[in-house]
Amino acid sequence: MNLLFFQISSIVIAILAFGAAFWLYKWVEKQPSSNRRIAEVSKLIRNGANTFLAKEYRTLVKFCSVAAVLILIFLPQPIWHGKPLENVIMALAYIFGTVCSGIAGKIGISIATIANVKAAESATKGIKPSFMSGFRGGAVMGMAVVGSSLLGVTLVLLLTNNTTALLGFSFGASSMALFAKAGGGIFTKTADISADLVGKVELGIPEDDPRNPAVIADNVGDNVGDVAGMGADLFDSNVASMAAALVMAASLDKFTDGSLNTMTVFCYAAIGLFASIIGVMTAKMKEGGDPTRALNSNTYVTTVIFAILTAIATWAFKLEWRIWACSAIGLVIGVIIGLASDYFTDDKKRPVHEVAKACESGPAFTILSGISYGLMSTLPSMIGIGISALAAYKICEPLGAGYPMFGISMAAVGMLSIVGMIISNDAYGPIVDNARGLVEMGDLGDKALEITDSLDSAGNTVKAVTKGFAIGAAGLTVIALLGAFMSEVNTAAVELGMAAEGTHYIQGFDIINPAVFFGLLIGAAIPALFSAMLMLGVDRNAQRMVAEIHRQFKEIIGLKEGKEGVVPEYDKCIEIATDGAIKELIPAGLMTIVMTLLVGFIGGVHAIGGFITGNIISGLLFALFMSNSGGLWDNTKKYIEAGHHGGKNSAAHKAGVVGDTVGDPFKDTAGPSINTQITVVSLVASLTATIFLTINLFG
Amino acid sequence: MNLLFFQISSIVIAILAFGAAFWLYKWVEKQPSSNRRIAEVSKLIRNGANTFLAKEYRTLVKFCSVAAVLILIFLPQPIWHGKPLENVIMALAYIFGTVCSGIAGKIGISIATIANVKAAESATKGIKPSFMSGFRGGAVMGMAVVGSSLLGVTLVLLLTNNTTALLGFSFGASSMALFAKAGGGIFTKTADISADLVGKVELGIPEDDPRNPAVIADNVGDNVGDVAGMGADLFDSNVASMAAALVMAASLDKFTDGSLNTMTVFCYAAIGLFASIIGVMTAKMKEGGDPTRALNSNTYVTTVIFAILTAIATWAFKLEWRIWACSAIGLVIGVIIGLASDYFTDDKKRPVHEVAKACESGPAFTILSGISYGLMSTLPSMIGIGISALAAYKICEPLGAGYPMFGISMAAVGMLSIVGMIISNDAYGPIVDNARGLVEMGDLGDKALEITDSLDSAGNTVKAVTKGFAIGAAGLTVIALLGAFMSEVNTAAVELGMAAEGTHYIQGFDIINPAVFFGLLIGAAIPALFSAMLMLGVDRNAQRMVAEIHRQFKEIIGLKEGKEGVVPEYDKCIEIATDGAIKELIPAGLMTIVMTLLVGFIGGVHAIGGFITGNIISGLLFALFMSNSGGLWDNTKKYIEAGHHGGKNSAAHKAGVVGDTVGDPFKDTAGPSINTQITVVSLVASLTATIFLTINLFG
Repeated sequence: MNLLFFQISSIVIAILAFGAAFWLYKWVEKQPSSNRRIAEVSKLIRNGANTFLAKEYRTLVKFCSVAAVLILIFLPQPIWHGKPLENVIMALAYIFGTVCSGIAGKIGISIATIANVKAAESATKGIKPSFMSGFRGGAVMGMAVVGSSLLGVTLVLLLTNNTTALLGFSFGASSMALFAKAGGGIFTKTADISADLVGKVELGIPEDDPRNPAVIADNVGDNVGDVAGMGADLFDSNVASMAAALVMAASLDKFTDGSLNTMTVFCYAAIGLFASIIGVMTAKMKEGGDPTRALNSNTYVTTVIFAILTAIATWAFKLEWRIWACSAIGLVIGVIIGLASDYFTDDKKRPVHEVAKACESGPAFTILSGISYGLMSTLPSMIGIGISALAAYKICEPLGAGYPMFGISMAAVGMLSIVGMIISNDAYGPIVDNARGLVEMGDLGDKALEITDSLDSAGNTVKAVTKGFAIGAAGLTVIALLGAFMSEVNTAAVELGMAAEGTHYIQGFDIINPAVFFGLLIGAAIPALFSAMLMLGVDRNAQRMVAEIHRQFKEIIGLKEGKEGVVPEYDKCIEIATDGAIKELIPAGLMTIVMTLLVGFIGGVHAIGGFITGNIISGLLFALFMSNSGGLWDNTKKYIEAGHHGGKNSAAHKAGVVGDTVGDPFKDTAGPSINTQITVVSLVASLTATIFLTINLFG
Repeated sequence: MNLLFFQISSIVIAILAFGAAFWLYKWVEKQPSSNRRIAEVSKLIRNGANTFLAKEYRTLVKFCSVAAVLILIFLPQPIWHGKPLENVIMALAYIFGTVCSGIAGKIGISIATIANVKAAESATKGIKPSFMSGFRGGAVMGMAVVGSSLLGVTLVLLLTNNTTALLGFSFGASSMALFAKAGGGIFTKTADISADLVGKVELGIPEDDPRNPAVIADNVGDNVGDVAGMGADLFDSNVASMAAALVMAASLDKFTDGSLNTMTVFCYAAIGLFASIIGVMTAKMKEGGDPTRALNSNTYVTTVIFAILTAIATWAFKLEWRIWACSAIGLVIGVIIGLASDYFTDDKKRPVHEVAKACESGPAFTILSGISYGLMSTLPSMIGIGISALAAYKICEPLGAGYPMFGISMAAVGMLSIVGMIISNDAYGPIVDNARGLVEMGDLGDKALEITDSLDSAGNTVKAVTKGFAIGAAGLTVIALLGAFMSEVNTAAVELGMAAEGTHYIQGFDIINPAVFFGLLIGAAIPALFSAMLMLGVDRNAQRMVAEIHRQFKEIIGLKEGKEGVVPEYDKCIEIATDGAIKELIPAGLMTIVMTLLVGFIGGVHAIGGFITGNIISGLLFALFMSNSGGLWDNTKKYIEAGHHGGKNSAAHKAGVVGDTVGDPFKDTAGPSINTQITVVSLVASLTATIFLTINLFG
């Protein structure tokens, strides 16, 4: 078996995934829908989402064009160093990455805005058809994203045979994800918070009430933030984990004149996608079944298929068992991290009950206890990530130098192997959330509302697990990228004549080195600053939208009373959310990139090593804290609404709503964007390693 | 000049400080006080504080006895290794440290509970006498704490001539501070929150209203948390910074057969105390002057005196100018960090105005914007600490191996040189806060209330600067302690025969080493868990106290209406706060120590190096975030109360109160305790280095 076999197999399986996506798309499209009111509303949602996406992409085209030109001039080495072809390849790989990421988002929006209608209307028939519409809609996204990431990575490597170009491709995906996630996250939470604040809290009208001017914007937000943004995010994580593994595999393969390690990466990644295809296509739910269990059991089935198939492949193709063990560990730890997140956000467990009890003493206690449990929730995941990195390293140590880091990267690949399934579950959430809104607005009756409510709640619960996976995998990937950064530095040092062939310019990053420590301190502050900027963006934007909603209720006569034929100006709210998000998404992302470059210019490669590390550590900490606190508050509110501690409209409920509002940008804007932020920092650092080697103040 | 000269000078200056403290104490005592009502109330406060302290110390005696026995058996090496005298010295040094720390707290309480009365009563005469009573009361504490820390360190070194014993002394101070700060912090915020919640929010009665059953507990809390706890905290930081510097100085002096570096540490520390004595004794305020300016100008005067005197000493005693530069940099960066904290909490600056504006949209926005600015505020300080460490390192690099780390420790000594002044300013805060309460309860009239209000507000503003100093210094100290840890490991390795004489067993802590990374990840989660445990402690305790206050208002007839002669059962509330604090203070502190040992046993000395580092980084981040968010919310509430955005009792004010309540345990329980927590981890690690070298799973 040679490398080409595995690459072609990867392409075949990627195409298989596209086939599955196409079949699922057609299946969803075929489901009946006839309600005129829903058709109208869903058109508004679709148009709103497409308008936002078009505006966002227009802004990002400008940004990415500038970035591409800079890459063309400076990367991998300044173009006047005489290898212009490499620069052209780099710039093209970068552009290819951004385009793939953009397409992933677009596909997600297209299917999500169809599947929501189908899930809504089939809810009148029962939970099963409604669930299947939601899940299969999400699965289209899952298959498309993972298929295109595997296809993209394989094509780039086949065409260029250059792993640095792979980092360029990955950087393209990351930079798009950074802005898409931030922009979508700001949009969705602006709309969500404003709609809730004026609708539920001030006026006491139900969620998704059509009188609320922000209600369409809220539903658009689910699509652009949770579907398109999340798709770009996981596309990015998946590409980054493969890129990191392939960079290290290639440098290991050099020494053996073979391609065993590179083959292993393709083999496991392809099997992961294949397992996800099986998992997605066989997913079922019984009428009257529990949607949470259905979603989780899909995940477990995929996990087991992956473990078995990779074991068979390892045996059949004589791959290295130690590497297999790493990927298996990654997968297991991923599940454990997911379960830990689940504990802190599940409404059947103690943290939610304690926070709900604290709500009785007022909003300050809701916040304090929610923050406390969120902070606590970081420990098991940090230990999990730490142990999997340590275990992968120790397992691969006997294989020789370079293998331990490769082992860590393969643990990340293992953790992300079932990402197709994870995206399907994740995209399911906003689809059924939207469906719930359509049921309410289309007046489809209480039974349908109850069904979509339970589907929605399952989506929230499963989200905790999938987020745990995403954060854990990002953590391992960036640890691996730190290794990739070091090997880029050493390669560049040899090329620049700063180190002899076969020697290492840097051996590692010693904490006692003050440049490293300097980097650590500043790197750690970046995720704090980054999330603060995003949250303030939501804050400012929501204040504008609240003012607009107030204006409409004041000026549009008959709106508050629900007079027949009186409709709010939905598009005004969509416009505010869109413009605000576009305005706020650039500074935070740009700050990240500029700070990385600044630290590099001041402290050189050692400072950057520290910077990446500080950034990983505090990034993981804040991502876990914010996601879990947010999920905890969300479920606490729902738990109270279900009749505990006085139920709806009690004092405890009001306090719970405050917690939920604080939690919204925590869990859907800042928290998940940090993932992408740490990947971007690592990639920027790796790509600019050569420059920092030669130009710096104190390195 | 020999070392003995500097040590004796240090002792003389320490005694001078005690003399100053005694003179100030007498001065405060001499101030007139005659109001009977105030005498009654102040007696309640004094008794409450002493009862708490007695109970707390009783618990801590048990804990410290166990620790002392463990030290006797295991440290610096297991006693069966045949150097029992060293173990006895170590245990005695530890006990000496705890006793000194305990005495510092006790002195603080004694003077604070006198000075509050004097400041209250002299407020009827004008702002100047009231200010002087508050400031000189605080200065007694400042002089006593710094005098005893310099005296203690000098005596331990003179008597044992053993720097490891110095670490034992420092650990004694730290372990006391950890619990005193946590216990006092839980007490004070339990009482503060409960009193505000029921009094101000539910019943709308003013702050410090004598009808409120929690009002005495609240005033006791100021003393036990902000005076005694803070004193123990800064005693600890000061001792730790000197200990770290002396450990490194001693190992550098070994190579030169001199004692130049050790002399330098004593020289600068003694001059710092001398400068503080001058600053404190010459502090003045004009009648009608601005108390904030008076406090800050004292700090700046002391800073300048220190810089000039150390420069003269460096010239006269032919000390090393590069070391002088390090201490000067520490001092300057300390001021800069303080100013950055000030920006984010000052009610004349943008963050407070923005958060106040956000309050109009409800409590969720208060929280979101406050958290965002708090997160942002970490960056300048992290950069400041990073740059001062980098600069100190680079300045001392030409002096040879070992000097760079010594330079960093001297930057910490420089930053803490004026700690006498800082404690004076810091202890001034709770004294005038108490005075305000006494004026209200003793009915001393509106003018006196206005005066104590303005003195109190100055205390809050200055606190931001002093907290910045304390956190920055703790950061530099623990970086230096990381160096001390490494040298302890290397010394132990030589003694154990694991490395040859004159060689280094470990060169540093490489991030790429998975044991280091493992430690980093877990170390970073510890401050999160630690602060969560403390905040949940406050949360639980406050819920109990709120229930008690409700009970009293319900069962004591005439209390709510303020009927003549009806008094609440103040002592019940004090009891709840005391018992709760005692119960909650042990687990969080113990967790920190146990986790350090666990990580050491799993990953060995490399994991511990990572653990200390992760702990420093996330500890600094959370300490800055929590202190600044808390200060920001406090001042936002006051800003609104001053008539902005609707003023008192407006919707914005209610939201501001929620922010303030969340901020209370942030800034006065969790935030400042993290300082001590990171010092404790570093010291435990250094002291147990030998054990982890020989016993570990994956090291």
